[in-house]
Amino acid sequence: MGEPGAAVEAWVAALGTAFAAGDSAAVADLFAETCYWRDLLTFTWNITTCEGRPAIRAMLEARLAETAPGRLTVVDEATEDAGVITGWFTFETAQARGIAHVRLRDGRAWTLLTSMEELKGYEEKKGRRRAFGAEHGVHQGRSTWLERRLEEAETLGFTRQPYTVIVGGGQGGLALGARLRRLGVPTIIVEKNARAGDSWRNRYKSLCLHDPVWYDHMPYLPFPDDWPVYSPKDKIGDWLEMYARVMELNIWTSSEVTGARYDEATGRWEVVVDRQGQSLTLQPTQLVLATGMSGIPNVIDVPGASHFRGTLHHSSQHRGGEGYRGKNCVVIGSNNSAHDICADLWEHGAASVTMVQRSSTHISTSDSLFKFGTSKLYSEDALERGITTWKADLLNASLPYAIMHEFHKPTMDAIRIEDADLYARLEKAGFLLDYGDDESGLHMKYIRRGSGYYIDVGASELVADGRIKLKTGVAVDHLTETSVVFSDGSALPAELVVLATGYGSMNGWAAKLISQEVADKVGKCWGIGSSTTKDPGPWEGELRNMWKPTQQPGLWFQGGNLHQSRHYSQYLAFQLKARMEGLPTPVYALAPSYHRA
Amino acid sequence: MGEPGAAVEAWVAALGTAFAAGDSAAVADLFAETCYWRDLLTFTWNITTCEGRPAIRAMLEARLAETAPGRLTVVDEATEDAGVITGWFTFETAQARGIAHVRLRDGRAWTLLTSMEELKGYEEKKGRRRAFGAEHGVHQGRSTWLERRLEEAETLGFTRQPYTVIVGGGQGGLALGARLRRLGVPTIIVEKNARAGDSWRNRYKSLCLHDPVWYDHMPYLPFPDDWPVYSPKDKIGDWLEMYARVMELNIWTSSEVTGARYDEATGRWEVVVDRQGQSLTLQPTQLVLATGMSGIPNVIDVPGASHFRGTLHHSSQHRGGEGYRGKNCVVIGSNNSAHDICADLWEHGAASVTMVQRSSTHISTSDSLFKFGTSKLYSEDALERGITTWKADLLNASLPYAIMHEFHKPTMDAIRIEDADLYARLEKAGFLLDYGDDESGLHMKYIRRGSGYYIDVGASELVADGRIKLKTGVAVDHLTETSVVFSDGSALPAELVVLATGYGSMNGWAAKLISQEVADKVGKCWGIGSSTTKDPGPWEGELRNMWKPTQQPGLWFQGGNLHQSRHYSQYLAFQLKARMEGLPTPVYALAPSYHRA
Repeated sequence: MGEPGAAVEAWVAALGTAFAAGDSAAVADLFAETCYWRDLLTFTWNITTCEGRPAIRAMLEARLAETAPGRLTVVDEATEDAGVITGWFTFETAQARGIAHVRLRDGRAWTLLTSMEELKGYEEKKGRRRAFGAEHGVHQGRSTWLERRLEEAETLGFTRQPYTVIVGGGQGGLALGARLRRLGVPTIIVEKNARAGDSWRNRYKSLCLHDPVWYDHMPYLPFPDDWPVYSPKDKIGDWLEMYARVMELNIWTSSEVTGARYDEATGRWEVVVDRQGQSLTLQPTQLVLATGMSGIPNVIDVPGASHFRGTLHHSSQHRGGEGYRGKNCVVIGSNNSAHDICADLWEHGAASVTMVQRSSTHISTSDSLFKFGTSKLYSEDALERGITTWKADLLNASLPYAIMHEFHKPTMDAIRIEDADLYARLEKAGFLLDYGDDESGLHMKYIRRGSGYYIDVGASELVADGRIKLKTGVAVDHLTETSVVFSDGSALPAELVVLATGYGSMNGWAAKLISQEVADKVGKCWGIGSSTTKDPGPWEGELRNMWKPTQQPGLWFQGGNLHQSRHYSQYLAFQLKARMEGLPTPVYALAPSYHRA
Repeated sequence: MGEPGAAVEAWVAALGTAFAAGDSAAVADLFAETCYWRDLLTFTWNITTCEGRPAIRAMLEARLAETAPGRLTVVDEATEDAGVITGWFTFETAQARGIAHVRLRDGRAWTLLTSMEELKGYEEKKGRRRAFGAEHGVHQGRSTWLERRLEEAETLGFTRQPYTVIVGGGQGGLALGARLRRLGVPTIIVEKNARAGDSWRNRYKSLCLHDPVWYDHMPYLPFPDDWPVYSPKDKIGDWLEMYARVMELNIWTSSEVTGARYDEATGRWEVVVDRQGQSLTLQPTQLVLATGMSGIPNVIDVPGASHFRGTLHHSSQHRGGEGYRGKNCVVIGSNNSAHDICADLWEHGAASVTMVQRSSTHISTSDSLFKFGTSKLYSEDALERGITTWKADLLNASLPYAIMHEFHKPTMDAIRIEDADLYARLEKAGFLLDYGDDESGLHMKYIRRGSGYYIDVGASELVADGRIKLKTGVAVDHLTETSVVFSDGSALPAELVVLATGYGSMNGWAAKLISQEVADKVGKCWGIGSSTTKDPGPWEGELRNMWKPTQQPGLWFQGGNLHQSRHYSQYLAFQLKARMEGLPTPVYALAPSYHRA
């Protein structure tokens, strides 16, 4: 064992001693003055980051005795880079097994991540614990796997109630559903489309995932090793449909939740579902909204819309450029959807395509994001360095949000050098570029506000060379029968106007399905309180309301990209399973609600 | 590097030197007097075992110059056990990359396995070579993945011909189909059932795989880690259906090949297919029969059958015990199907179940087969020892058939001790037991004749305690309207008679689909020529006609259990790909045909 290894061993041993002594002060003293402890359930039954020694000590004073951590064991090799020593250790609490990742500076912890990996007594039946399958011996009246599956489909939601209902059968709902299945939590997933995966299939035809394959695996069943880097939408649709099937998920397709009400007296929900035309009520204890992190479309009110003779719709309604050949098209907005739709219209031979840019946008090319960003943890290179998907997710989670932007600035700097030419040409074309409030680039915009950027897969070239026209620094004033009139008095002929004006917070779904009161009680989803554009404070240090307890008992939000759907579904699943089993789950530092949306 | 490592390094270095010198005699001299070189394509474009130095030397004299092996590199750790040193090395030939496994005794090779792993210039597009998926940039008239898939479905077999047609969409057809897809060989799989996987689903309801999960993975997409040890039939059916979909196989379901004819002039087949009621002709260059290793049912002629008022059918027609409650049932035969059907009838409450045993049968319990046999290479224990599925398959393949029985005798001895009580009770009940001609047990019976055994999953207990009645030492003489009359004059009332009388050789399918002439030219499939019961000589040392060139150009047999379907499909796929690309594929030691069936 080299020096980094010895340092990690020593620190973990000291931590174990302080834990065993129940000495919160001693534990806090093992941290550097600037320090972060991010806990994923193990101590707090919450997703929360304690920032600074006093916060760590306060958390432990509330939680150390009951958590009873022990059996700390260093695993994997420690490494050192620029004065920071990194190590891993496993541990147990009274309730769970966990893994931890620590970064040491001068012998004290700068960052600590603690992640729940297994609930004691409720381990997944995998590997040596897997089901036997066959029932050897002879059994009169034996039931088969198929009979049990059919019986479950016929009874769950009818003669017996699911513990959990998940609204939405995209990657978020399916990933969580698969984890709950393994943990034995009876669950129904309600999906409005006819087939799982249709939420991808139904989008514009050239769509491919914007994240690379290594980032996108679903839980338990990784893609085969020839899966394309950027999955075409129909291929990922097929994969998700297959996934729901082989994971034995109870997914109700062509079904929509039309309303839900929490019964304080019984602690259960009344969820009204239109199931293939038939209305029925489910009574789960837990309700998960997995309706897409983008929430409800922001449809702006455009004066004159009723007079407009062409097509006017929100980007979420736009099915692709077919049918607009030879037409004049105006797209309001300049983020991902706006770019994708403009390029698709151009590819389909629209007479003119104009993007109306209302405020500045960040652009990073897909290639550069991968080269300078994602590939560090998610790539063939990373795999060769021993960074499995599981390890990559933990490393990803180990960076506290409070300092994450510091790690993204050098990435952004590198991309600005790499793509200097593109950026210069975009500016020359009049495009209003930004790199984030603190120049930290795309990923922080994603975390802080989930918007304000375009991952360039080709449209920026069309903007730079004028094939997509730009209209900037103006607002839409009104529509006439055949044109868009802007605030500066100028006008453009239009047969299609697309409102690529984004989406509201996910709690808009709570307002729509439950009540405005519950939506307000829960408050805004997403964002970390960074006090940057569209991410108002106060500081929370975690994504608001995501994958963790909310102010509304029994209401949860699951969502995000494929990586987040995969990794954070683990923690949401443990929280639901523990509640189903009646385990104590005292939530430390339940976040208050500050913003309605 | 310890002593075993040094020994392997020295031997491989000497082999490399002899290869480089083109010195066949020197290579042969590196082998022990008793020695075996099993080649999977790399030197011979065949699946063949050279036994003894003269055979090795003769093979090299024919093939060494053209093969041009080189770049021998020892990989993995060498081990030593009871005087046998085992090592691995990679190598290249003019056409391919390979892996080799060697067992050394006293510094010379006792066994050598050489396996083709990659065709140079035709590497699978996986890992770093995977497709990009998205087409970044803007492309007017771009085609999407879905459009290309639909176009392929609409044209392949209609306006353009597949290079390969596979008859049968069970695990054999699908495994080969997946490999050919990756290698870019246009292929159509013709499956008579409505859905892939139905060949499993359509069988009796309690059926589960008889082999454990670690043995059963399909190529490229292993089961998730909670897959049951013994898959229920409907679950494996769903998996295969999903597999065909996500692997993008062109499978024609509800379709049957009704005839095929080889056109010597064009070197192509005329394959007549009834495709969902529509007759059409495919013209592939290669025709693969993946119709199940069991071939055509052996339906014995029973005098009086036309007078019998009950149900009389072959085991392949039997759909399970439902409907036979309170009925008297007679099952002719005492192998796997007979046992499974008898137990299932008993479970369904038949009034009486009688098994008619015509000759002795081997019984091994499923648990003991796993404990003393399969688990050595395929289990959680094996995985923990670093034996991946890939490595297990190679180790499995590394044992020449000529000495395989020697390795199975100790396993059989252990099982006889473990299950002594069951065997004693079966004999007491009058069951005619055997352990194979040379006491080598079940696996050798499987390899030699593919029959003559029952993997006990419960029925033997019913036989032992008399709940399944036995009738031994008699033949069926004739049926009356209501009974079975035996050669000793005794009779049993019967409302169901099942002929569990086995199957013919796979070349029966060639007779049925092509012609008796071609079936005879190709000869018997399966069996190694051991001159044991039902495996007539002369000695071939490989499974006759399986996965390798046959006497009929363009005709191939793919089949076997899930392990064989997975592993040997690799070699069959390389053979087809090489021919499609026009690479030289001189077949060394093409096996003659000795037996019609």
